[in-house]
Amino acid sequence: MPTLSNYTFDEITIGQTATYSKRIEERDVQLFAAVSGDVNPVHLDAAFAATTQFKSCIAHGMLSGAIISAAIAMELPGPGTIYLGQSLRFRLPVKLGDIISVNLEVTEKKDKRGFVTLDCNVLNQDDELVVTGTAEVMAPREKLVIERPSLPSVRIGD
Amino acid sequence: MPTLSNYTFDEITIGQTATYSKRIEERDVQLFAAVSGDVNPVHLDAAFAATTQFKSCIAHGMLSGAIISAAIAMELPGPGTIYLGQSLRFRLPVKLGDIISVNLEVTEKKDKRGFVTLDCNVLNQDDELVVTGTAEVMAPREKLVIERPSLPSVRIGD
Repeated sequence: MPTLSNYTFDEITIGQTATYSKRIEERDVQLFAAVSGDVNPVHLDAAFAATTQFKSCIAHGMLSGAIISAAIAMELPGPGTIYLGQSLRFRLPVKLGDIISVNLEVTEKKDKRGFVTLDCNVLNQDDELVVTGTAEVMAPREKLVIERPSLPSVRIGD
Repeated sequence: MPTLSNYTFDEITIGQTATYSKRIEERDVQLFAAVSGDVNPVHLDAAFAATTQFKSCIAHGMLSGAIISAAIAMELPGPGTIYLGQSLRFRLPVKLGDIISVNLEVTEKKDKRGFVTLDCNVLNQDDELVVTGTAEVMAPREKLVIERPSLPSVRIGD
């Protein structure tokens, strides 16, 4: 049984890191369009995108935000984390086929309320910084090792 | 033909507002799990969620971020906008069935590079602030009125 586990506030150390990678496919951009409602043709229409400064379809900026949030919720601190805040700077476009890696690093712990601050750097396969930011979370107090739900099965198109 | 249009930097005024609403369904949370990879059971498993402080399944925090980004890209300034940055504070959970409204308000314009700052407030159907934040964008210089792509058709489950 695949499991999902967390790091409790007490287990977390300053400087602790985690990485979470994902290849961005056309399918991801279509799913993000469907769930957000952002159907801008720069994301969905290759002919239109070719007329823009980007030359080809780019992922929605906030798709990188979604993947940062998954890195936090799945890896560090993991299940039971309460998401308090996130800042994001969108530095470079993410193109279809790019492999992006979210690098998290713990920079601060505040004992009293269990707050943890993490630097969030998203790099592409060429080691270019595409998104940077800072997350603030309330880390879990209790250790959790739970069954890992499977990814919902989704089909695109009729 | 349904169209999509934008506000150019010159057309945008301080104090200008836009609203974008969406009912958050179980389907949206499943799609967000699929696209981000965050399959935490607090979002997907009602029995597990019942054991948490939230008592029932809650949406991923960053789903509200995705909807803010869609409000900016679809409504104000709309197509052609370059997303530069976003801050987010997650204040209250969003539950399945909640209707959330993103309220955008232009608070600053910087002529030289076409930068525009927008306050972003997300309210639920009870007028409670669930997410707040600030967006920084580069507004389009050119007026666009383009064909509105339809929402990708997506099916969940086998």
